[in-house]
Amino acid sequence: MTARPRRTVVLLSGGLDSATTLAIARGEGYACHALSIDYGQRHVAELEAASRIAMALGAAEHRVVDVDLGQFGGSALTDRRIAVPMRGVQPGIPATYVPARNTVMLSLGLAWAEVLQANDIFVGVNAVDYSGYPDCRPEYIAAFEAMANLATKAAVEGTPLRIHAPLIALSKADIIRRGAALGVDYGLTVSCYQADEKGAACGLCDACRLRRAGFAAAGLADPTRYLTA
Amino acid sequence: MTARPRRTVVLLSGGLDSATTLAIARGEGYACHALSIDYGQRHVAELEAASRIAMALGAAEHRVVDVDLGQFGGSALTDRRIAVPMRGVQPGIPATYVPARNTVMLSLGLAWAEVLQANDIFVGVNAVDYSGYPDCRPEYIAAFEAMANLATKAAVEGTPLRIHAPLIALSKADIIRRGAALGVDYGLTVSCYQADEKGAACGLCDACRLRRAGFAAAGLADPTRYLTA
Repeated sequence: MTARPRRTVVLLSGGLDSATTLAIARGEGYACHALSIDYGQRHVAELEAASRIAMALGAAEHRVVDVDLGQFGGSALTDRRIAVPMRGVQPGIPATYVPARNTVMLSLGLAWAEVLQANDIFVGVNAVDYSGYPDCRPEYIAAFEAMANLATKAAVEGTPLRIHAPLIALSKADIIRRGAALGVDYGLTVSCYQADEKGAACGLCDACRLRRAGFAAAGLADPTRYLTA
Repeated sequence: MTARPRRTVVLLSGGLDSATTLAIARGEGYACHALSIDYGQRHVAELEAASRIAMALGAAEHRVVDVDLGQFGGSALTDRRIAVPMRGVQPGIPATYVPARNTVMLSLGLAWAEVLQANDIFVGVNAVDYSGYPDCRPEYIAAFEAMANLATKAAVEGTPLRIHAPLIALSKADIIRRGAALGVDYGLTVSCYQADEKGAACGLCDACRLRRAGFAAAGLADPTRYLTA
């Protein structure tokens, strides 16, 4: 008789980083319950990509929770009146930062983890390429984990919950190399902030720039369909 | 010229505790942006009550965010297959505990606070009557505040965010006395876990028992419409 694999919740956006994170969690033997959040993004291509990635990488289950963060405004990703930046990474917090997005997503992951009796949550945050996002830093992840361990039945019953952020210190090239070695088909993933309905990428926004540069630095072919050269 | 009042987000469920919390925040001079979360509760009477309370207590604004925590199951408040407890408060975590509910609600409050440039969030958690809920304890609130101060632009830009839980150490009777002194009309509030469509209370569930006992201990008339004596 083999032991039942440990369950984990994996936050899955449909992008390159979260797909790699799912592959890492699977590689560590977890039964992966993939969670996507529809927070009022500009496009649905990313969520459709998440569904395909969950299937391709052998997730046990994939769910989408709707949360209308767009009604609060404040981000280029949820408010059409704010322009998506096109000038390369600038100092400070980018206009594409969604207020408290990772906190909301991790909180929903925590709710599901508690019901699943899972003691682990995987999230693909990365502090290197996105240093302007406060909720992508290691000290933030550590603080969320500490809070989560006071918030839940698991804490009361003495089973610590762990937030895994395996990409947090990796470069985009390192992430791509790691995922490629684990068999991730990056052609399924969508990184572009303004992908079209079929998931084709603009090639111009910061997310596209970082992705292209990452494949080049990794020395791997970029399977992305870009609308511009 | 008078200074613009400081803004705060107040989590408002429609129950007795959060109505009192809103009255306290108003009494401290805040412009109150009231936030209700529809997390798949068994009834909508509570949310309708929240709307009336926000108006009556002079909130600047009231919004409702839908989050389908019910799809995860695990609580008597969102899953009709789990019975609402009727036998008085028992040791341990009650069946009415909603997984990570306060974490999800505070996270959404944090997202809105960041967009509003509010540095304060008020929440009506109470550690005395609901000692079985892990996310109603002072150490949990402190840990959420620490996490929030690493999660947001406010943290990066050096304006600390504060989570106010003014009821956390009060008895139900103390809460009722405090709110009554601030002019809260408790006839507008709904505490019952299974109120009917018009907001009438069962009189039997734990929330009803605590509410009834609170009014009795405070020596004040209970304006609640109970369906049972």
